Formats: sequence, C-alpha cells, structure tokens
Amino acid sequence: MTFPATEYQERVGRAQVMMAQSGLDALLLTTEPELRYFTGFLTRFWESPARPWFLIVPAHGNPIAVIPSIGAALMGQSWISDIRTWRAPDYVDDGIGLLAETIREIGAKTIGIPDGIETHLRMPIADFRVLQGLLGSKIGGDAGIMRRLRMVKSEAEIAVITRACAVANRAFARVHEIAWVGVPLSEVFRKFQMLCLDEGADWVPYLAGGAGQGGYGDVISPATDTPLKEGDVLMLDTGLVVDGYFCDFDRNFAIGSASEATQAAHEKLSDAVEAAMAIAKVGATAAELFHAMDRIVTGGAGGSDAGRLGHGLGMQLTEWPSLLPADQTVLGAGMVLTLEPGIEVGGGLILVGEENIVIEEAGARYLSKPAPRRMPVL
Amino acid sequence: MTFPATEYQERVGRAQVMMAQSGLDALLLTTEPELRYFTGFLTRFWESPARPWFLIVPAHGNPIAVIPSIGAALMGQSWISDIRTWRAPDYVDDGIGLLAETIREIGAKTIGIPDGIETHLRMPIADFRVLQGLLGSKIGGDAGIMRRLRMVKSEAEIAVITRACAVANRAFARVHEIAWVGVPLSEVFRKFQMLCLDEGADWVPYLAGGAGQGGYGDVISPATDTPLKEGDVLMLDTGLVVDGYFCDFDRNFAIGSASEATQAAHEKLSDAVEAAMAIAKVGATAAELFHAMDRIVTGGAGGSDAGRLGHGLGMQLTEWPSLLPADQTVLGAGMVLTLEPGIEVGGGLILVGEENIVIEEAGARYLSKPAPRRMPVL
Repeated sequence: MTFPATEYQERVGRAQVMMAQSGLDALLLTTEPELRYFTGFLTRFWESPARPWFLIVPAHGNPIAVIPSIGAALMGQSWISDIRTWRAPDYVDDGIGLLAETIREIGAKTIGIPDGIETHLRMPIADFRVLQGLLGSKIGGDAGIMRRLRMVKSEAEIAVITRACAVANRAFARVHEIAWVGVPLSEVFRKFQMLCLDEGADWVPYLAGGAGQGGYGDVISPATDTPLKEGDVLMLDTGLVVDGYFCDFDRNFAIGSASEATQAAHEKLSDAVEAAMAIAKVGATAAELFHAMDRIVTGGAGGSDAGRLGHGLGMQLTEWPSLLPADQTVLGAGMVLTLEPGIEVGGGLILVGEENIVIEEAGARYLSKPAPRRMPVL
Repeated sequence: MTFPATEYQERVGRAQVMMAQSGLDALLLTTEPELRYFTGFLTRFWESPARPWFLIVPAHGNPIAVIPSIGAALMGQSWISDIRTWRAPDYVDDGIGLLAETIREIGAKTIGIPDGIETHLRMPIADFRVLQGLLGSKIGGDAGIMRRLRMVKSEAEIAVITRACAVANRAFARVHEIAWVGVPLSEVFRKFQMLCLDEGADWVPYLAGGAGQGGYGDVISPATDTPLKEGDVLMLDTGLVVDGYFCDFDRNFAIGSASEATQAAHEKLSDAVEAAMAIAKVGATAAELFHAMDRIVTGGAGGSDAGRLGHGLGMQLTEWPSLLPADQTVLGAGMVLTLEPGIEVGGGLILVGEENIVIEEAGARYLSKPAPRRMPVL
C-alpha cells in the first residue's frame, strides 16, 4: 500500500460522516480510483476489462471487497479484512449474487453510486439491472460524496504528486537529448516516455502533443512519423505515474527557431498562469481562475473548444473540479489543480501551456517547475 | 487512421446486417475501442474521464459522431463526415440533449448498447437515465453484436497485432541487459518498459509480473523495490501497443539458477501451450482449449482462481472469448487468442506462461515467439 492504513481509515470515516448527512446506508464503488481511494489496492490489471470489481463502504464499520479471486492475494495485503471472492469470469453469475447477498447482509437499503459528471459505472449494464432487481430497489446517486472527498488531497497524497511532478520536471529538462530537426515526432514520443521512466516514473499512461509551424492543430492526437522541421513548435504533455498518482503538465519547445510572434504567444501563456496564481487562494472559485486566464488568452471570450482551462489532478489524469465559467467550486487547502491556458495563433493553430499547483492555507504553490516565459530553442 | 476507410466501412456493413437480424435501429457506443472500431479515432486522451464520447451506428447510412468539441479536429481526419460537437464539460447538458436529438432525427426506436460480460457504459449513469427519459424508451442490449464483430480480426488487424508481438519478442530477448541478482524489481519494470519503447512500442499500457524463490504469489501486483535474489523466478507480462493494438504475453527467467523442479514446472507450461495449439483449429471451442491446458497444469481440476487460461486480444489487452469451461465459442479464422496456463508450485506460489496465437483456416499460428521449454538463466 502507498500509505499507512490510518490514511485509508480516515477516508472511510470522512465518507461515513457525509453518508449520514445524505441518508445513505452504503456506497457501492466499481472503478479503479474509487476502490484504491479506500483500500490502497494498486494494480495495472484494471487495463483488462474482463472482470468487475466491487467495494461496499457501509454507513458503519469497515469496507467490504467483493472481487474476483485473481485479486484476493493482492487485496489481502491491504488493510481490508472482509474480502469476498468469486472465480471471474463467471458466465452464470459474475459476482452479482455475491454482491447482492453482501448488501442484504449489512442491511443497506439506500445505496449510492457515483453518478455525476466525470464518473461511470464499471460493470456490465445488464448486470446492474439484475442487481437492482435482486435488491428490489433502484440504486441512487452518491450525493457527490466521492467528488467531495477526492477533490481535497491529504499531505501524503500531495507528497506523492510532488514526486510525480519532479520526475516530469527532470524529463522535460532532457528533451534537448531527443528532439531536433529531422527527428520523427513518433520517435520523440517514444524517447520522451523512456526519459520519464529513466527519471523514475512507474509508468507513463498519458502522452499527447503535437508539432507544427508556429503551433499545432490540437493536443489529443497521437504522434505521426512526420519529422520535426525548422520553425516547428513541439509540445509534449505527459501524465506519468508515481505510486499511483499522476502529474499532468506540458512544455513547448522551438525547433531551430521561433518567430517573435510565436514567442509572444508563449509569453501570454505564462501571463495567464501567473494571473491565475495571483488569485488561487482558499475561498476563490474554479470559475474565477478560468476568467483570470481567459481574459489574457482570449480577451474574455468566456470559453473555447477545449471546454476548460484546467482541472483537478490526482489518482486520475483529470479530476474535479473543472476551470470553467459554470464551476463554482470554492477552492480549499489540499486541492491540486492544473492551470492549462490555450491560445489561438492563427491558421487554426494553438499553443497550450500547463502547470500543476496545490492550494494551501498561505496561497498556491507550484508543483511543476513553471515553464520559462520564452520557449527553449532546440 | 490506422487502416483505409474501406476497412471501417466494411465493419459498419457487417454491423448493419447483424442489426437487421436483431431488429435494432441503432447502436449507441461510448467506449474507446467501440468508437475506434468503426471510425479509426485513435488517441490516448481517453485517459481523462472528464468527457463522454458517443457514436451512433444507424441501421442504414454512416455512423454519426456526437463528441466533445476538443475532439473535432482529430475526428475530422477520419472517414466520418457527420460530426456533431458540444463544448464539454457542460454542467447543464453534457451532450445528452444533442445525442437525444440526433437519435430522434434518424428515427431510431430500438437502440442497443453493449451490455454483456466485459462491457461497460462510459458515461455518467445519471445522464444515461436522463437520456432514456428524453427518448421515452428503455435502451436495450446490442444482442452481442460488438462481441461477435470484434472477436474476429481482419487481415489488417492481424498484421498490426503481429507487429506488436514482434516488438515484445525483441524486448524479451534483451531482458538479460536489465535483470540480475541485486536489481530491484521496480527498476526491472521501469527498464523493461524502456526496452519495449526502444524496440518500437508506441506505449506500454500494461506491465505486470513478479519475482520470488521458485515462483511468485500472483500476476497482477505492482513491482516492489525488493532486489532480485539467486533462485528467484522473474516473470514479466506486457501489454504493449503498436498502432492501437495490443500484444499480451509473458516470459519467465531464472535469476542465477533454477531448481530442476522449477524447470520441470516451466516445461509443463510449454506442454500445456502445445496441447492447446494441437487442437486450436476452426471449429474447436474455447472450452476445449481450456481443458487441453487444464489437464496438464492441474490434472483436470476444471478451474482455478485465475478464472481462465487465456482470452481474446486486440484493441484491448483482453477481449472475448475466455478460455474457460463455460465458454462454448466456436473458434473461427481470424480470432486472436492468448494461451495462458498457470501452474501451482507449492507454498502458494505459481508459474504462469502466455503466448499469442491466431486461428487460420489451416490451423493455429504463433504470433509470439514461443517461450523456450527451459527458462533462460540470467
């Protein structure tokens, strides 16, 4: 486990206070970060969609894991003692009978699952219908409990995210070793992931980026084999993982040279980040951070196709809140955020910057080493 | 796009034949492999859970993408011409209104979503309830159409999976460069991922493994910092990706030395794979492959905590079918499978082998280079 058992037990305690406030007898959880949040169960085996996994957090007492037997040994290393297993995949009953029996045993009537934005239910929807039939009741929402819990990180979590950011800082400082005129973008992508691993990443779930003359078309495309050209801006955006926690930030590099207009656009990204940092304090809202950046990168247009200018970060590459006009989340100490302004540079091209920060009682602190105002020329 | 447009158009044609047989007016798809199967839309951006993505495959005509505007540029490079976007995340209506309107526009009444084993619905369940309310109808299952389609690979898909397997073959052949007595397992994991990238992987979504005296406790745990010891068996199991397709196989290595009992257990894994290969032909069943291996590794116990002894493989690390007694799937030409026998070696320890194969008209063919009968000693 990444943290001592007390870390997970305190999380359960906080959840149970919220459950009492919302009249919930149990939370039913199905996704990787939800299970790991309460148990510490860390494995890359979730990459296989074959088997469902369940955790019940009751209103009182400890969580109960209802999981495939292939996971029993690893879950047995966690602080969870009530572990119930079946041999998945089971074509007759893939854990649903065992799950319903467990829920009935603890007498839970009102059951909540995370059902809001940025959530999904990781189990076959036909099995979910069977479960509701067995329980004789509709399973409702979790009243935003998982969102509220996970949005505020503990000191221990912030320490791990800080380490992930430091790995990426070091990898970005070595991009000059792998990128120059003539190198295919796909090779830059492969070698950058090797740099991340070499600097201490456990793995590199996310890498996106782009390269083009003075900017790039989008920030989600996979790499092509097109070689870097003089005048390209190369952007690399990584979500690497250390001990189960992500960093998520990017860096822009000028290949050979950059026009003054391109460097000026890049400086505006720094201006936007600094404007958000200046107001990123306990009590400010996610929307206010959006507007601080939006005023600089669009003149206050109020939105763009990216949909937001930053987001939460932690066990997932992106988490709540979103930095957008409708998000009135009040920032609290322990929130870890990305500031991710993007700017249009003409011809359908953009530049995007991104930093990782943590909100503390005294103000905001960078977790990523802020990008230089002017792009490094490679 | 990985393939020419005709590849995707033929898939749509096959889906529409099956939809007619099942009385479905449309398929509604929400997950990465489902969207990519029909569109070629390839991005690592799915790592972010923030935004839902939708594809409608109508009974007649071309698919319609209903997606966040951040994906419009990339989807615009595919063969899909009807792309409808909204600026996600939208806290008032995160694409549900646009999706319902599109479904109404094409006049679809009976709508199917993949709802069976190994599937999930990638959207907030609260939004799914809203969608059903807007449509005034319950959305049903897809009659197994996606499973039937994806389980049989095209020549083009098999060629890409073959390349992914070749990358892993080359990486496994270099493990002697990174693993010996005294090296922490976590360092072996990091460096093995670097070898995979160096040999041509686009990324390495999956790496599991273990190390211990004569065997390991499970095959899903993350690496610890424990150094390799004389007499350890080191197992590495990778799912690396080339052009959006996985390989999935493992290799065992003896650190310093291995007892004759350990080598004999490893030889039984080869025996089991060969027994399955001998009967892996068009017309055999998934269950028969299971029993051929199970007779050798357990003497015919009929099951184990792993739940199965292999599975399908393709755009996901694991796909249908499962090699287990209840799976009566009849093997057809074009199916790509893993053969994954495990054997208990006492003291709660196991050894697990894994190969990747393709079923052809003439019989089965290895895509991975089969493991040597005796473990290499590092």
